[in-house]
Formats: sequence, structure tokens, C-alpha cells
Amino acid sequence: MDHDPRLTPLVQGLPRTVPFVGPEAHERDRGRPFRARLGANESVFGPSPQAVAAMQEAAAEVWKYGDSASFDLRHHLAAHHGVAMDNIVIGAGIDGLLGALVRLTVPLGAPVVTSDGAYPTFNYHVTGHGGVLHKVPYTADHEDPERLIAKAAQVGARLIYLSNPDNPMGTRHDAATIARMVAAVPDGSLLVLDEAYIDFAPDGTAPGIDPDDPRVIRLRTFSKAHGLAGARVGYAIGDTALIGAFNLVRDHFGIGRISQAGALATAQDGDWLDHVRTEVARARDRIGAIAADNGLTALTSAASFVAVDCGGDGGFAKTVLDGLLARDIFVRMPFVAPQDRCIRISAGRPQDLDLLAEALPGALADARKR
Amino acid sequence: MDHDPRLTPLVQGLPRTVPFVGPEAHERDRGRPFRARLGANESVFGPSPQAVAAMQEAAAEVWKYGDSASFDLRHHLAAHHGVAMDNIVIGAGIDGLLGALVRLTVPLGAPVVTSDGAYPTFNYHVTGHGGVLHKVPYTADHEDPERLIAKAAQVGARLIYLSNPDNPMGTRHDAATIARMVAAVPDGSLLVLDEAYIDFAPDGTAPGIDPDDPRVIRLRTFSKAHGLAGARVGYAIGDTALIGAFNLVRDHFGIGRISQAGALATAQDGDWLDHVRTEVARARDRIGAIAADNGLTALTSAASFVAVDCGGDGGFAKTVLDGLLARDIFVRMPFVAPQDRCIRISAGRPQDLDLLAEALPGALADARKR
Repeated sequence: MDHDPRLTPLVQGLPRTVPFVGPEAHERDRGRPFRARLGANESVFGPSPQAVAAMQEAAAEVWKYGDSASFDLRHHLAAHHGVAMDNIVIGAGIDGLLGALVRLTVPLGAPVVTSDGAYPTFNYHVTGHGGVLHKVPYTADHEDPERLIAKAAQVGARLIYLSNPDNPMGTRHDAATIARMVAAVPDGSLLVLDEAYIDFAPDGTAPGIDPDDPRVIRLRTFSKAHGLAGARVGYAIGDTALIGAFNLVRDHFGIGRISQAGALATAQDGDWLDHVRTEVARARDRIGAIAADNGLTALTSAASFVAVDCGGDGGFAKTVLDGLLARDIFVRMPFVAPQDRCIRISAGRPQDLDLLAEALPGALADARKR
Repeated sequence: MDHDPRLTPLVQGLPRTVPFVGPEAHERDRGRPFRARLGANESVFGPSPQAVAAMQEAAAEVWKYGDSASFDLRHHLAAHHGVAMDNIVIGAGIDGLLGALVRLTVPLGAPVVTSDGAYPTFNYHVTGHGGVLHKVPYTADHEDPERLIAKAAQVGARLIYLSNPDNPMGTRHDAATIARMVAAVPDGSLLVLDEAYIDFAPDGTAPGIDPDDPRVIRLRTFSKAHGLAGARVGYAIGDTALIGAFNLVRDHFGIGRISQAGALATAQDGDWLDHVRTEVARARDRIGAIAADNGLTALTSAASFVAVDCGGDGGFAKTVLDGLLARDIFVRMPFVAPQDRCIRISAGRPQDLDLLAEALPGALADARKR
């Protein structure tokens, strides 16, 4: 974008990289489809049948803009979480909410803290709005609350990002640790607690929600356990002043009518959520077993994917990954060392994981030959 | 938002007003539904049955993120318009695209030109990103290309907004006038040509598309003639450098899977588009007849709504509008004088316009009594 005078100086200097290449783009490049789609942490178990029915019914009414207040959905979520409706804002997935949050809170040149190797789309939004990223390393494959807080205090960070459970490693902190982190947030900082994968974590992972705590904003999504990734619905929970600020910049009619109907229906379908949780737990065990069968170590995961340590460096893991892609298994891997010794495999149905089990030995053998 | 230190200085100073209150919000406030929904320029004729079928089919696959490249949709649109795929970016409706465009092109404090009373959501995004609006008046109920260009040259505007046909007045300029305007865009400015309603305009309204012209970006939507307002899909056509810049800031997985399927299906259903155009033309005539029956003047409209001159000032028109709302007819009106002597009525089905015809005399009589 060099020197296009129509663009702002900030935009002229932005990197051309994007956080993720989608599986369809890979398929077009490869000229053939994947046999197993285990790379984007989607819920291959599908959406709730009640959500599908609600969306199909809403399709005929899609000539109407969606409710700009998302009243019914926020009303349900507020009751579910025991907070007020004004503590909740709906966004186009956590990605959309992260973009809006950065815009609201990070002036040009302001510092922001995250972990090196944590969610790249957060970094994309920070850079895109002219914030300056400061990264701390993981500690033993966990994002490190103490390091994050210390760095935030040091640089005067506007935002501190933490996902719990963590993506891409699947590790987690318990609720008491997170509560201590919230209590330690320095003045002038805000903790961005990304709980995209919280539905898969053991009890005791999420601290209680205090909707009046100005030190933290919590992000949830219907893209993971609820299987609505392609509907773009997430939400943030925070104090009313911060949540109210989203209304000053958000695209008021941006949450579609079908999406709102699907999210409301799945939010009310606890049975489906239980079903998906059970399937994901089974899939994590199976991925662990497949890894062990191949002499690899699967990290304990509290999320809907498993990081499998390939036993070498990032280059070796990348070769294994390429071998799986070549065998039509879509997976991804963490971006930075030392986490990049792993590949990340999303929970799959038995038939998906059969394909993984079939493909992995060859991918590993090829990698070891090189 | 005063003095919330978590927010940027820009956000702390933003106005709390929003461009539009949705019909559902009105209904909740009133405690009862509208009988006719003729205020938001939605297509009450509904989406293409083929689009509904495509969306219903996609609902079961919504666990997958939408294609981040929107390849199939862009491929179709590129062929349709005779441009390259890289000349097209998909966004969450024109509203979403306007927000991204302002972010890309308007640095803090930079001037932007529009007409006083033109699309308020554009203004919302300009203000929201810290741009400074300069407004010129309408001329005889038309946005005035010469005034807009002159003002842009005077203030050094980054963007010049024009909708053709115009919303809220429904007036239009012919293709030659728009082409002259494009040719006159000052160095350093970009014309934002919002063609949301172009499908309803007579032949000769849209100038030919030159995808390499760096002076103009054109915005189209599936929300109006295609009846997909609740699916949030629009697109911009421009030169590859400008369109490419959207990829530096956009939410790459932000266009939902169901929405993409619906947009692709309706884009291929020319018969439905013809049907809607015919119905809208009929509805415009009927609204004109209803206005005349009540001694009012309907402006000639090239869009899917009609501005009806209530024959008084803005206060009088507002009273007529309130009388219609009280009679459960949802309509809106232009925001600024002298256009605010009108109320704006979206094209409706015969049964919707029967309700309008029934309600208008009482609303007018009440207004004249005050």
C-alpha cells in the first residue's frame, strides 16, 4: 500500500499479512478439498438442531434488518449470567468485538500487552489501530498472568490480553489464578479475558462474573461450543460504562437477523451443549491416543482442540503439518517458538479422527526422513 | 462516557446519538407491533425464494466459518460487472463498508464532505473515526454535485459522499452528471458513490464502471432490491490498490456462511430482481396516488421509497409522522430542513399501502388541528 495518498499514514504502514488463511483458500490453492476439517477450531459436531430450525425459519424474514439492540438475545444472556442487559454487547464474533474494543481503548501509539504466540487476530487489531504490542513469553506452555501484569505495569498498557483456556496450546488457569490477575490489573489497564473456549474447560476455570468490575472485560462466543462460527455472534460482558461505549462506534444493524435467531435458540439448548462437550472430551482423548500411538505427546487440553508436541523444533512440526495437509487433513500449528514444536488439532468426529490416525504415521515418517 | 480513562480521547468526546432507532425498539417502547413496516427501506417483498433455499441449506453448515475470501460471491460479481475479483471487496452491508472506508482514508481531524441531510450513518462513521464533516445544502431536493466538489476543493476533503439515487429524498442524477462529478474530484479526494438504490433507478442513472479509476469507490448492497437486509452483505468496487487496503483492516472471517450463500443465490436470480423492481414501481405510484388523495405531493423517486411533502414545515411533518406511528404504520422522515417537510415511505405490498391509505387522513387531520 506504499504511498497511496488516499490512505491514512497508519494504513500505509500496515503489514500485508493476515492472521489466518481459511480452509477454502487452501482448498482452492490445492485444487482439492480436505477430507477432515480439523484446523480452525470449528465445531464439526454441528449446530444445535433447534438453532438450525430457528435460522431456517428466520431466512424468510431476512428482508428485515436484525434488531439493532439484539434485545431478545441480550435479555436471555443477561438472565443466564445474572447480569443486567446493559452489561452485555453483542458483536460479530469475538474477532469483531476485539476490533471494536481496541478502537475504543487504544489511542495511536499506545502500548498493549499480550503473550508471544497468543491469538494473532487480537494483535492484528492492535496493529491495525496503531497500538504498540509488547509480548511476554509463555511459561511452560501457559500464558503467564504474572509476567503479563508485570509487563503491563512496566509499559503502561491500555489492554492486557489473556485467553483462558488458551488458544493455541489448550492450557488453562483456574478461577482463583484469574481472579488474582484481575485484582492485580494496574491502574489505567484493562484485562481482555477471552473465554472463547470456556465451555470445554473443567469446572473452576471461570471466575465468577462481577459485572461492575472496571478492570476486566470478558468475551464469549457462539462460534465454538455452539457451532455457529459462520453466523458471527459473540458477546462481551463488562461494566455498563465500557459496554455502553461500544454503542458509540458499533455498526448498529450489523448483527444479522438469522444469526440472532440461531444464537438465541442455541443459548436455550443446554442439551446440545452437553452433547458437544461430551463429544469434544471424547475427541481430545482420542487425539491423545493417536499421538501416543505415534510416539508423540499430546498436551492436556481444556479447549476444543489438542496441541500435539511433535518432538522436534518448529521446522519439524511444520513438516509434519505439511504432510497432514498433503494427506487432505486440515490442521494448523502455533506460530512461535517454543510452542511451534506442536501442531494443533481440532476435536473431530470419530470418522474425522480415523482419517487423522491413518494420515499421521506417514506424515511423521516423511518428516523424519528429511 | 465522560472522563472514562479507559477510553481514547476521541471516544470520550463522541456524541451519544445513534443514526437510526430500529423498528423493534419502537415496538418495545410502544408495547405493540406495527401493522405496516414501511420505515427502514427494507424490501417487504422478501428475498428471492432461491436465496431462502440456499440460506436454509447453509444453516446446517454454519459450524464452518464463512469463506474469508468470499471467493464464489466475488467471482460472480466480478463477471457480472466486468471487473476483476480484486476490484471487489465484500463487507457487512454498505454500513460496514463505510466504516472501514473511513478508517482507511480519514486521519484524525481530516475533512470530509457530504450533503446536509444525506445518509447519517456515513456521518456517524466519520465522526466516530475523528473526521470533520463539512456539509453543503441540497439543491431543489437533490444532492448537489457541483457544491460538493467545490466544498471538497475548498476544505481539502479526503472523502466526498454522494448517494445516487439519493436517500432520503429519492431523487437522482443521470449517469453523465455523475461522470462529470467523478472527473471533477479534486486531487487528494475520493468520491464515495453510494448506489444502494441503483436497482430501482431508470436506465442511464449509473455511469459505466471503470474499475481502475482511483477517484471513486462505488458501494452496492444486497439489503435493498435483493431483500437481504438482515444478512449483512454489501460490496465495494474500486481500483485494486484501494480495494486491497480493506484486506489490511477488515475482519477476515466476518462475512457469515449463510449470508454468502444467500447473496450468491440472489445475485443469480434475475427474475426475482425484476419482480421486485416491478412491485416497487407499482408501490411508488400507489404512494403517489395516496399522497394526492390527501392533497399532498409525492416527490418523483428513483429508489424504493417515496418522500411525501406534507406541505408544512418540519414540525408539521413530524406531527404527521407521529400520527402514522400512533396508527401502527412505521415510517421515517428526513432529518434536516427543508427536506424535513417530507415523510419517507418505503415501498410496500398492496396490503401495506392499504393500511397507509387508511391511516394517513387521520394523521393529517390530527396534525392540522394542532
